[in-house]
Amino acid sequence: MSDDFVGIILGAIKALDPYRPNFRIETDDVSTLLVGPPEQLFPAMRDLFVSAGSAGKHCVMASTVSRGCPGEPDDPICTPSAHFGKQPPLAERIEAAHKAVALAPVTGLTVAAQFSLYPLGSSHHMDEIYGCIEFVKGSGVFDRSKNFCTKLRGDAGAVFATMSEAFLNFGAPEGHVALDLKVSAHSPTKV
Amino acid sequence: MSDDFVGIILGAIKALDPYRPNFRIETDDVSTLLVGPPEQLFPAMRDLFVSAGSAGKHCVMASTVSRGCPGEPDDPICTPSAHFGKQPPLAERIEAAHKAVALAPVTGLTVAAQFSLYPLGSSHHMDEIYGCIEFVKGSGVFDRSKNFCTKLRGDAGAVFATMSEAFLNFGAPEGHVALDLKVSAHSPTKV
Repeated sequence: MSDDFVGIILGAIKALDPYRPNFRIETDDVSTLLVGPPEQLFPAMRDLFVSAGSAGKHCVMASTVSRGCPGEPDDPICTPSAHFGKQPPLAERIEAAHKAVALAPVTGLTVAAQFSLYPLGSSHHMDEIYGCIEFVKGSGVFDRSKNFCTKLRGDAGAVFATMSEAFLNFGAPEGHVALDLKVSAHSPTKV
Repeated sequence: MSDDFVGIILGAIKALDPYRPNFRIETDDVSTLLVGPPEQLFPAMRDLFVSAGSAGKHCVMASTVSRGCPGEPDDPICTPSAHFGKQPPLAERIEAAHKAVALAPVTGLTVAAQFSLYPLGSSHHMDEIYGCIEFVKGSGVFDRSKNFCTKLRGDAGAVFATMSEAFLNFGAPEGHVALDLKVSAHSPTKV
């Protein structure tokens, strides 16, 4: 949210350089597409956003993340490698996800985020959503539940790690799972 | 994307005033929540975005839209009133949606948009998505398919009407359907 938005955006996209060997990255007038290993998506988005936020200007990132990719030619490279053919019970997945968030790096940038998880094509999609909500409430960065999304607040490291674990661990392992997120930094609105 | 972002955002939110009698509207540091009749959601978002775009600055709106609302107290007011208990065949829904887009007002603001439709809890969710894609390709504002989303380009009137028809007519009528969208105006990127 700056008259210098071109410089800030182009500078932030440079933060993706270390990820380029593992991703296909395409930028157009509306968005940047990243196609690659699901486990590396949120670290890449975190580094991009922390870079943009380093200018101290109010900035927001809105992303749609998908795994499973039915009908897409990239299916082989964008389906998670872990858990294939087996999926631990919800309680075990929640515990493992909490451990992963505890290991997240500290970036020094405080952010607020809202995200929604969409496990598609599964008859028990609400069970997976409720399991994911239980995980997020114990993540250390849970702010509150809102209509149709969950709000997080804290260091960008833990916030992106929490969304990454939600994305990787809930919904059928071989299924189509989408996650929608908005992340905000340096908002002038008092909270 | 302007140093005057506070003025532009607060000015645009005023465009929601005519909708306030029918909606519950809450703004916080990350987003504005609208809860109300699904048929009026996209007209409200269109007026909001056209107002923001009238400043001539590059601006983007990212929204998550949901109907069905399982487990939410607002369920009675945010489930579509049409089609209840019956759903016409896909071909009829596509034709009706095309007619609705043809009647959309012309705003004078050219926008690009990307959106994804998520029909949840249905075993034939891909059929509904493919039917929706067929509708969008004949909408007059179809730009191209991208990974996991569809890109539109044209007058904000037809673009928002196309997304509204996609949201209202595809996915189970009494089901949980989410739609994720990004709309952009005045981008300096050449297309």
